Amino acid sequence: MDNPVSGASRNLPRVADVARRAGVSTATVDRVLNRRPGVRPATVARVLQAAEALSYLPPDLAPHPALAQRPMRLVFLLPAGGNRFLALLGKMIAEAEALLAPFGVAARVEQVRSFDPALLARHLLRAGAEADGVAFMAIEHPAVREAVNQLAARGVPVVTLISDIGHAPRAAYIGLDNRAAGRLAGYLMARFLGRRPAKVAVIAGSLSYRAHQEREMGVLQLFDEQAPEIRIVAVREGHDEPAQNYRQTRMLLAGHPDLDGIYSVGGGAEGIGRALREARRDQAVVFIGHGLTPECRAMLIDGTMEAVITQNPRAALLDCARVFANLRAGRAALQDVEPARSEVLFRENLP
Amino acid sequence: MDNPVSGASRNLPRVADVARRAGVSTATVDRVLNRRPGVRPATVARVLQAAEALSYLPPDLAPHPALAQRPMRLVFLLPAGGNRFLALLGKMIAEAEALLAPFGVAARVEQVRSFDPALLARHLLRAGAEADGVAFMAIEHPAVREAVNQLAARGVPVVTLISDIGHAPRAAYIGLDNRAAGRLAGYLMARFLGRRPAKVAVIAGSLSYRAHQEREMGVLQLFDEQAPEIRIVAVREGHDEPAQNYRQTRMLLAGHPDLDGIYSVGGGAEGIGRALREARRDQAVVFIGHGLTPECRAMLIDGTMEAVITQNPRAALLDCARVFANLRAGRAALQDVEPARSEVLFRENLP
Repeated sequence: MDNPVSGASRNLPRVADVARRAGVSTATVDRVLNRRPGVRPATVARVLQAAEALSYLPPDLAPHPALAQRPMRLVFLLPAGGNRFLALLGKMIAEAEALLAPFGVAARVEQVRSFDPALLARHLLRAGAEADGVAFMAIEHPAVREAVNQLAARGVPVVTLISDIGHAPRAAYIGLDNRAAGRLAGYLMARFLGRRPAKVAVIAGSLSYRAHQEREMGVLQLFDEQAPEIRIVAVREGHDEPAQNYRQTRMLLAGHPDLDGIYSVGGGAEGIGRALREARRDQAVVFIGHGLTPECRAMLIDGTMEAVITQNPRAALLDCARVFANLRAGRAALQDVEPARSEVLFRENLP
Repeated sequence: MDNPVSGASRNLPRVADVARRAGVSTATVDRVLNRRPGVRPATVARVLQAAEALSYLPPDLAPHPALAQRPMRLVFLLPAGGNRFLALLGKMIAEAEALLAPFGVAARVEQVRSFDPALLARHLLRAGAEADGVAFMAIEHPAVREAVNQLAARGVPVVTLISDIGHAPRAAYIGLDNRAAGRLAGYLMARFLGRRPAKVAVIAGSLSYRAHQEREMGVLQLFDEQAPEIRIVAVREGHDEPAQNYRQTRMLLAGHPDLDGIYSVGGGAEGIGRALREARRDQAVVFIGHGLTPECRAMLIDGTMEAVITQNPRAALLDCARVFANLRAGRAALQDVEPARSEVLFRENLP
């Protein structure tokens, strides 16, 4: 192995190397890298490719921001409504201009009324007509699938974010392995409950989200495998709305006053917490949910919630940007994109 | 708010902006950015600073790798011995040339026999005589503190990694908040044991590591606060060596055949696992440790271990590189360095 101290500067490429690889003069390389006019577009492209191939441009950030082509215009379609995690994600994306610029992409966010597949399909088609790429949180529905088909046919790349759609020609899915996330929730629930017969309820946003379906499958599979003493007494849908989750939880507690655990698969967990506190069951029921929001933080700290499974929203956004940059450069969609990790937050490791 | 789609390319700086800010001609900027000779070093520095201030260079990676000054030569001092996590970290650092180059640093790793403060102090002084900066895993000891004093007096910046030292002029500490990590381990232990009287043992590497001391304080504090029914029956030191940990665990199990939990504060956890398996207590004892290694992975999967608290070694290395790059550029040591996060891994969320 080389001595890393002495070897670091030896192999740095120089303008001459770029020129040689691109088959142009060093003066032309200068002109391109400093964006002076008078170089044919094909030559510009050749020089930039050579510079990138030689890592003359920083590998992660190529093309160099100062040399970027017109940014790729992306539209992010996210559900409107009471899901604070998605609202925060949307806000972050809308304000991420500087974060995205090095990837040569720029993003605009549209909020679409939740759980309405026909409306989502219309937004997809409209976004695809104006944008160079679309990222969206999918609903499993033929109308949505057909819209993705049409965008793909037009050459507009589509990325699913947080929740995927099956059998549709999307370029990539950026989000958790939701079956694994559901198993993780089930594992923690079983361990926190201890080895005793226990009653657990699952509250999802909507099972038309593949992500929610898969999380539910994961938790069921884990209980079946490792905690047969746990009985799932109810699966409800609260549409990620705190008020609906509150009502669902009130009804659950009325029917099962001895409920031992709640797994909140979607958003709006604060509604569940409110119902638990009102029934004075917040310290007794093991309550595990998804997506770190200020409301979940507060519930972890006061002991209403035991654990929150989350993903890093900034990392998810950067992964999306990288996918579109890869596609534009003709690379594989997921090149250099690491799988998203299910992080678990307890009151003792809140960031 | 600006429309992020239309606004992205408008404000990109150009060579002329850099030239204006640096007070030089665009030809000089060209010359500097393309590393042609004939520019005075002070002017080179002014141009690079102007380019960086205008984000003409990618903000994260400044100085641009192709423009880097002579890389800052760093020495990383890590304990030799049976701690696989540290061995893997050392290997990663030694092979990280490409990862570190964009920060303008190059690293060499020295393994130092563990738990020997006088030897560590000598290595520190020797490294400080040849290197531009030193990162090391500290031992709390006057000889080590004095070596850090001497390096600081000579203007050689020192960063502590994984374990800090008190009252010494180190430039920064890169590692976990270990008191919080100990509390987290205690929280998980208490929840996994359930609310019942239980006996727990703590096995540290050495309490001469501040990190191990603080983790132990954290776990004690949490039990005291939230789980008074848990009794700590022993605190042992295994010097991060699997063989010593094995012997310690054998003795513990001989004295406490009904032991309910083990918190492994340091490395070499596989020795504890072996003793638990031989005593057929591996599925009964709740075993929580630190630092993801292949051995810990295997123990999580087979159920010997319940949880591993870990930090991302690559992120820790990049944070070190950023600290030294910050110091060289005259910025605050921890600028743009996020606090390390205690990640918890269970069998269900192994990366």
